[in-house]
Amino acid sequence: MGTNVICQVGLVVRDIEKMAKVYADVFGMDVPNVIITDPAEVSHIKYRGESTPARAKLAFFQMGNVSLELIEPVDGPSTWREFLDEHGEGVHHIAFQIKGMDRVLVYLEGKGISAVQRGDYTGGRYAYVDSAPSLGVILELLENLGKS
Amino acid sequence: MGTNVICQVGLVVRDIEKMAKVYADVFGMDVPNVIITDPAEVSHIKYRGESTPARAKLAFFQMGNVSLELIEPVDGPSTWREFLDEHGEGVHHIAFQIKGMDRVLVYLEGKGISAVQRGDYTGGRYAYVDSAPSLGVILELLENLGKS
Repeated sequence: MGTNVICQVGLVVRDIEKMAKVYADVFGMDVPNVIITDPAEVSHIKYRGESTPARAKLAFFQMGNVSLELIEPVDGPSTWREFLDEHGEGVHHIAFQIKGMDRVLVYLEGKGISAVQRGDYTGGRYAYVDSAPSLGVILELLENLGKS
Repeated sequence: MGTNVICQVGLVVRDIEKMAKVYADVFGMDVPNVIITDPAEVSHIKYRGESTPARAKLAFFQMGNVSLELIEPVDGPSTWREFLDEHGEGVHHIAFQIKGMDRVLVYLEGKGISAVQRGDYTGGRYAYVDSAPSLGVILELLENLGKS
């Protein structure tokens, strides 16, 4: 993996605007902006190897050194939608900042853990892997890409 | 609450020895010792206001500033057993170090969030609250108590 530093905890929710307000109230923080992931033409999102129109509404709270990410699935199919349908609201993933996405995915493949969703965001790319059977939770790999 | 720093992510699992080995392998860390929570006479554990013989096997991985806690329920009833029965393996809670347990529990009660399990451990005490309906995840409050 190259790291064991948890940088983010991702929570799938049904109503992100409502839940963001509850978090802000309980923890005494500002209500964050809710953003939406880029459309597929920009994000190049693939779910289980296939293109998908799925997007997600996102909101972030900085909680110490960890970012709490609220995720409301929009359309589907996606790992977010699948989790919500199977489990209801709850912690969907823990995330790690990695370097060398392809190398790390090959490493995890060697441990029997495959990518289930990949995509790009402004400044980087991500992958979710099917680690729930072996690790009890989905891992997300985040790789920030500087301009070259 | 007095803090918004996530200090621990707690994962309920079926076979802690097996999963601890997988984490150690995937992340290149040492396999931690598995401990068991104190018996009820020592931990004063209460679940939904009643004494319970429930215990848990625990193992910890330090992952950056966050501790990943693996939890295998032993006997019951407990919040750990309830989660495993309802959701299967997965992230059970996020935890915060607080000061003044009773004060924080009164504050959360005012937000409609009640304690569901409380107990003592060597050097401190804990409470889990029923925040899943409002925050999508159970919160754990941890209070370390110095010798006076």
